[in-house]
Amino acid sequence: MSSSEDEITEWFARKSRLSASDFPIGVGDDMAQIQLGKEGSVLVTTDMLLDGVHFDLRTATLKQVGYKAMAVSLSDCAAMATVPVAAVVSVALPEGFGEEELKQLHSGITLAGDKFGCWLVGGDITSWKDKKPFAISVAMLSKPAGNEPVRRSGAKVGDNICVTGSLGGAGRGKHLEFEPRVEEAMEIAQIVTINAMIDISDGLSSDLSRICRQSKVGAIINAEQIPISDAGRKSDEPLSSALNDGEDFELLFTLSEREAESLVKQWDPGLIPITQIGTIIDTKKMQIKMPDGEINDLEARGYDHLKN
Amino acid sequence: MSSSEDEITEWFARKSRLSASDFPIGVGDDMAQIQLGKEGSVLVTTDMLLDGVHFDLRTATLKQVGYKAMAVSLSDCAAMATVPVAAVVSVALPEGFGEEELKQLHSGITLAGDKFGCWLVGGDITSWKDKKPFAISVAMLSKPAGNEPVRRSGAKVGDNICVTGSLGGAGRGKHLEFEPRVEEAMEIAQIVTINAMIDISDGLSSDLSRICRQSKVGAIINAEQIPISDAGRKSDEPLSSALNDGEDFELLFTLSEREAESLVKQWDPGLIPITQIGTIIDTKKMQIKMPDGEINDLEARGYDHLKN
Repeated sequence: MSSSEDEITEWFARKSRLSASDFPIGVGDDMAQIQLGKEGSVLVTTDMLLDGVHFDLRTATLKQVGYKAMAVSLSDCAAMATVPVAAVVSVALPEGFGEEELKQLHSGITLAGDKFGCWLVGGDITSWKDKKPFAISVAMLSKPAGNEPVRRSGAKVGDNICVTGSLGGAGRGKHLEFEPRVEEAMEIAQIVTINAMIDISDGLSSDLSRICRQSKVGAIINAEQIPISDAGRKSDEPLSSALNDGEDFELLFTLSEREAESLVKQWDPGLIPITQIGTIIDTKKMQIKMPDGEINDLEARGYDHLKN
Repeated sequence: MSSSEDEITEWFARKSRLSASDFPIGVGDDMAQIQLGKEGSVLVTTDMLLDGVHFDLRTATLKQVGYKAMAVSLSDCAAMATVPVAAVVSVALPEGFGEEELKQLHSGITLAGDKFGCWLVGGDITSWKDKKPFAISVAMLSKPAGNEPVRRSGAKVGDNICVTGSLGGAGRGKHLEFEPRVEEAMEIAQIVTINAMIDISDGLSSDLSRICRQSKVGAIINAEQIPISDAGRKSDEPLSSALNDGEDFELLFTLSEREAESLVKQWDPGLIPITQIGTIIDTKKMQIKMPDGEINDLEARGYDHLKN
């Protein structure tokens, strides 16, 4: 059987010989953290988006694609509760793409970046020699927001599991125009101590499994508490859509029960809702409590680029 | 007529509204520089490499491709005389690529990075849904080496123009296994003050034109002084090969005559040779003195992804 993205990433992480003092966060989180002397550190992430996979240029505009490419990396900055700073963007253009296409793309890149003070500082333009498909890769830098960046590995047994917004059916449109939860992440991190966080890019089940694997814990979630989006409810299987559809780009995080209570009390009701969906447990496996009370094992069934 | 890469890049640079205090070096140099508080700064570059354009997987191994992808960005670090620190790598895999292919690629990435203490800290794996071609994008961070990073824009009238190594015919093999001039750049920057520098990625004529445009100067080079590589000499037109072939990844730099004399005296003859090939002049155009004494205009005829 072929390896999953997570298995390969774990192999890369084992192979890396990063010193913890120079690289407080290495391979396998939403961003890596690089210490630059005593005074400061910077975080970095990268995302590649492909025509026909992450968007379809027959229906999406290049402005939407530029927006999405930046928003995906901005969502990684949010997942660490860090402040986006700057991005570089490289593109592979099909034959025939030129100035006009690059300017449309640029308008989407800056639309997303300007919202969060994250500036385009450089890039690389390459072209296929024929009609091969468009690809775009963003690398984004962020800096800590005062607190330590929030990792995937800090979930503790007994933690509440929370999500922002609602889940499912992002492929029906949200995936091109979602709002990265950068400000919400800052706000949450200011109010409470978050133990672990990730953004839901491949699907709740898969991204929760990453928190569980990296924190060496299990989780039980309550199906009735999962906030299913309108788009998810339109699917044939709304619960499965909320669990396994990718590209929600909501925040999934864990914090102690006491902190969760505090967050709920202090959370501005005008902001995007936060929902408690389950609890971190010590089984090292994931479970889901169904509406009829039955408890089933929950498998990571989100998107995997090496398996889908 | 379609715009060139340089024209588009200048448009992006004009559109960017980067504050000089936060971004001492913005769009349009080999790397951008980001100030992080008072104490430190970091530089960033990105490069996309495509199967069928920058390499050919029918003849090149994935290890060579991983090496080249890193080496191209390491060469950008060298061009600024900065110290490479870390890289993130994103890939677009054709259907059928998996664990084994990623491990081969990884061996090349670390072969190049480990030489210069530049560590792979993260990445993104994506897959096409069919046999579309392999693409790889590297983003690399570096830090200043004590001196200010060397820009393209600092060339002064009267400066000597120098290159490392020899030029031409890199497509015959060197482009897959070249040695980025990271150490040489440090060494030169320690001995003398470099006014302007770039790495020769698209060809001497094109990269010299970038120094000239950004420094608002002209240049005259002496054809007989250009160090033509053995591979370049095998071409039908060795001089044209040395002027216009891409992917030499040698350093092209300018410095005052006095500094150039000092460099020649102090340069360790065991290192890669440095050759003086011309002089910065105040005409804003590029010229070349041919072996017969005739002086011709020199056009930028290197590789342009929007025109080739």
